[in-house]
Amino acid sequence: MARVTGLDVFDIRFPTSRELDGSDAMNPDPDYSAAYVVLHTDDTGDTTAPAGPAASKGYGLAFTIGRGNDVQVAAIRALTAHVVGRPVPTTAADLGALSRDLMGDSQLRWLGPEKGVMHMAIGAVINAAWDLAARRAGKPLWQFLASMSPEEIVSLVDFRYLTDALTPEEALAILNAAKPGRAERERRLLAEGYPAYTTSAGWLGYSDEKLSTLAKQAIADGFAMIKLKVGSDLHDDVRRMKLAREVAGPAMRIAVDANQRWDVGTAVKWMEALAPYQPYWIEEPTSPDDVLGHRAVAKAVAPIKVATGEHVQNRVVFKQLLQLSAIEVLQLDACRVGGVNENVAILLLAAKFGVPVCPHAGGVGLCELVRHLSMFDYVAVSQTMEDRVIEWVDHLHAHFVDPAVVKRGRYITPTAPGFSAQMFDATLERFRFPDGPEWANENAGAVQARAHENKGRTS
Amino acid sequence: MARVTGLDVFDIRFPTSRELDGSDAMNPDPDYSAAYVVLHTDDTGDTTAPAGPAASKGYGLAFTIGRGNDVQVAAIRALTAHVVGRPVPTTAADLGALSRDLMGDSQLRWLGPEKGVMHMAIGAVINAAWDLAARRAGKPLWQFLASMSPEEIVSLVDFRYLTDALTPEEALAILNAAKPGRAERERRLLAEGYPAYTTSAGWLGYSDEKLSTLAKQAIADGFAMIKLKVGSDLHDDVRRMKLAREVAGPAMRIAVDANQRWDVGTAVKWMEALAPYQPYWIEEPTSPDDVLGHRAVAKAVAPIKVATGEHVQNRVVFKQLLQLSAIEVLQLDACRVGGVNENVAILLLAAKFGVPVCPHAGGVGLCELVRHLSMFDYVAVSQTMEDRVIEWVDHLHAHFVDPAVVKRGRYITPTAPGFSAQMFDATLERFRFPDGPEWANENAGAVQARAHENKGRTS
Repeated sequence: MARVTGLDVFDIRFPTSRELDGSDAMNPDPDYSAAYVVLHTDDTGDTTAPAGPAASKGYGLAFTIGRGNDVQVAAIRALTAHVVGRPVPTTAADLGALSRDLMGDSQLRWLGPEKGVMHMAIGAVINAAWDLAARRAGKPLWQFLASMSPEEIVSLVDFRYLTDALTPEEALAILNAAKPGRAERERRLLAEGYPAYTTSAGWLGYSDEKLSTLAKQAIADGFAMIKLKVGSDLHDDVRRMKLAREVAGPAMRIAVDANQRWDVGTAVKWMEALAPYQPYWIEEPTSPDDVLGHRAVAKAVAPIKVATGEHVQNRVVFKQLLQLSAIEVLQLDACRVGGVNENVAILLLAAKFGVPVCPHAGGVGLCELVRHLSMFDYVAVSQTMEDRVIEWVDHLHAHFVDPAVVKRGRYITPTAPGFSAQMFDATLERFRFPDGPEWANENAGAVQARAHENKGRTS
Repeated sequence: MARVTGLDVFDIRFPTSRELDGSDAMNPDPDYSAAYVVLHTDDTGDTTAPAGPAASKGYGLAFTIGRGNDVQVAAIRALTAHVVGRPVPTTAADLGALSRDLMGDSQLRWLGPEKGVMHMAIGAVINAAWDLAARRAGKPLWQFLASMSPEEIVSLVDFRYLTDALTPEEALAILNAAKPGRAERERRLLAEGYPAYTTSAGWLGYSDEKLSTLAKQAIADGFAMIKLKVGSDLHDDVRRMKLAREVAGPAMRIAVDANQRWDVGTAVKWMEALAPYQPYWIEEPTSPDDVLGHRAVAKAVAPIKVATGEHVQNRVVFKQLLQLSAIEVLQLDACRVGGVNENVAILLLAAKFGVPVCPHAGGVGLCELVRHLSMFDYVAVSQTMEDRVIEWVDHLHAHFVDPAVVKRGRYITPTAPGFSAQMFDATLERFRFPDGPEWANENAGAVQARAHENKGRTS
């Protein structure tokens, strides 16, 4: 029987801080990075897997923004003993067992539990195993998941700490209710894709002119919504929001994103100042850990919606945000939590509470991965794309073998087998930190000096 | 001016799983470990520091339970550029600035924010800097902190995300109210020490006979409370609790600790079964992330108190537990959060809400460190020891230069300068993983095999 023979991890960093792409109120100078996982197997292609040799590896990643990507790599390496040596067919056939195994290591659990570096590491490895399993099945991840029976899908989920809000029986009922229309929704998805919105216009480091040009472009490109970063300077934000509203007209949705910059009181005051320009949602108004804070902001700023999720550490925090009606938009992230399994739990929670899921994306590989989750949600869980949009940022996609593609404001539905996390070998060579050519020229001293300069910039 | 010249990190592991010390419902086989930090300076002792050459280094640690301690080490190393090169006197004189600097690295912040591996790393480094500063001042940490002005203490705290529950002005008022009696409370503390309770009797791996013997011993030793681990098997727990109550008599406080084992509904049912034996508190009934869950349990099990904290990731979660009246006992941990600074914030929050702090301890160095925080709290914040006890587990203290000492059920007040995290060089040599003699004999294959055996044991 084929087995997992190795787990390789790469420290890949893109020097995005040189252009201020991705700058916001809390993250002024990110170097978008990935701790990139390759699962190797001794599956030589002469197996029953439809995809043959292409299904001999699985790819996953954790997204970070630069310094600390080495810590993320170390955390993934700490999981090696849990995956290497496993039989491939049984692992691929029961990814709930793999998830329970990785989450259940009592010693590693102490480092979270279920949060931060160690949890993202588990997510990267689980996602790589899902990639492998979907490749073996010859299906894109969204379709592989959506072809499972409701019972199989429920068995993927760890219901610990969830049963006061969602029981396995309720989850099964949600999935069973969605079963009849699966084939029709799959056809529609393949024909029409999935709605996107863009953050490309609104980075905090951009000039008014660039904002205006990019916003016009976004509207011409057919996006249903644009998003601006806010939270650094109220006067600037009012001016930028007013400008965006003028460019976009009264009907276009414009979201704003504070990236956790505010306390509750500040969030409320800031949104009062922006309210005349009708922001659709305020994203990450305060700490992602503060479910009560989100509820307080949501009550105060209605009808502006509150959104969060890219830094919500696990299903337990999402559960509470939903129990409190503290969010009206749930922004799951493909790589922050414990992989596909925990994201299935989060999708089921959102469906139970009737809250639309509009995933976070834009980081390295996040657009590539998360589209699969939204598409699975549409086919097999929520049954709707209404008020649902996936974030889109048009950079770094060229590094991916099966890149996310957006046309006329919609994500094209992927059809290649797997979970789309695979990067080109040339990218791994060039952007490997610190020895790839992109970084070797910037010597270690310069990198350290930059770290020193950045001290305190965001506090 | 003297500068920080280096940051060394050691992977130190004690093979406690061989004896089932520390076993509980979620952690059946911990190897108590520390990612141990040494800050080096070029302070040669010819400075104005009262302690002279003894004040040339600072020691700190993050506590883990085995696998993953290497990840914790990597996270601490990622902070090197933030500390090496800093001037010692100005750093020691403004530890609020050091804290803001470490927490404010926008790229590293992405790995949390303020939670898990990266946050514990920041805590270890901040605590090492506090050790250095207290040594330079020639005072034990508790006294060093308690000799600061209320304004200085407030300046240590990051109030971001706290102001809806505690403002700087309110914190100042709490500290000012406690100022008059400081000297008298310091005298009392030095004369009488601080109350302790013991978990030594109640580890889940122990036989009934061992439990009974150790419980009798604990009472004879003068402890105000004992604690049993529960949560694995209800029938066993009822038997053990009944036995403990028989041994202890009706007046003795007996706490129980489920180590996050339950969902809300299970917690309530389990405590109904234990209630006839009058447990004083139920500790960690469910996920440390579930503030709403804790509130639900607290309402249902009253008058049994709900306690949590050893895995509460930061001040934002403590804030919510207090806002909801979800806990009646706050169990801060010296090494889980962002060091002394964040623990000062947590002590101030607890004082504001009138909830007693009974710290978690027992891991490597936790008793040594956390006694300083409770003693500072008594002198300068809460002004009382009533209903306050520090956990005590009598193992691994011999590895520390300034070990925690408990006599007649009370922690003796430490008087040596610093924060007591320093371990003996011989310990570092012997228990260094994987190359120290304690581990080199157990070859890498055996360690891997153990990791495999443990898969799924706790899920």
